[in-house]
Amino acid sequence: MADEYRAASDDAIAKVVDSLAFNGDGLIGAVAQQFDTGEVLMFAWMDRAAVAETLKTGRVCYWSRSRRKLWRKGERSGQEQRLIELRFDCDSDALLLQVDQKGVACHTGRRSCFFTAFRNGKLETVAEITVDPKTLYGEEEATQAGSS
Amino acid sequence: MADEYRAASDDAIAKVVDSLAFNGDGLIGAVAQQFDTGEVLMFAWMDRAAVAETLKTGRVCYWSRSRRKLWRKGERSGQEQRLIELRFDCDSDALLLQVDQKGVACHTGRRSCFFTAFRNGKLETVAEITVDPKTLYGEEEATQAGSS
Repeated sequence: MADEYRAASDDAIAKVVDSLAFNGDGLIGAVAQQFDTGEVLMFAWMDRAAVAETLKTGRVCYWSRSRRKLWRKGERSGQEQRLIELRFDCDSDALLLQVDQKGVACHTGRRSCFFTAFRNGKLETVAEITVDPKTLYGEEEATQAGSS
Repeated sequence: MADEYRAASDDAIAKVVDSLAFNGDGLIGAVAQQFDTGEVLMFAWMDRAAVAETLKTGRVCYWSRSRRKLWRKGERSGQEQRLIELRFDCDSDALLLQVDQKGVACHTGRRSCFFTAFRNGKLETVAEITVDPKTLYGEEEATQAGSS
């Protein structure tokens, strides 16, 4: 586990949010990477409020395009992402979130969402399910729990 | 250096491209990660042709939204990305490219485009320029060489 997150001030948060280039839908893409192993866990979207909440609380909050609301990662599944460091790129239109992922990032019960690889000339599943999705979301919701 | 890339067949490439969920603009976001160190280098976009060319040639080709054409990474700067493995996520709407980056990924001359971090309550530049952009693009073009 990494050190406890120190909440950013509202002024500092506003400066970060104002530095970012949100797209026409008011969103910015975010890559989540496990801070110590380097594993790329997932890609999702954030709006201004999601970036601000993430920096305030130290728990990663995305914008769910399918549910059209803030998506506090792990709020149902318990598989939270603690923010270690937020970075952005040279165009200010993509975020890299270095996080500490509790359990699994993917709603399928795999550590990373990027589990399909083109390998040996065909598509292969390259990661095992380590947590049964039913234990994350309950029997009925498990098939609908993904978000993007 | 990794092993030489083995070109995929046209049938196999078509299957991969057909598996992906391109957005309303016909694009899919791609995260490029250095295959052996895990460093996230950049985030850019690909269209169907860019994905197909990348799998065919083993050299990463993006779609430049600003120039509105295929963007063969390194074609001007020499800073090519060789494809090691293409992966995609559980929604099939984001790519993870594991690559071998020659030199630097960023047009600013830094290894990674994600060089601005929110650290200690303020924005900090956390990567050094290791290659002078003028040597990558020539004097006049250096300021306009970024793409996204």
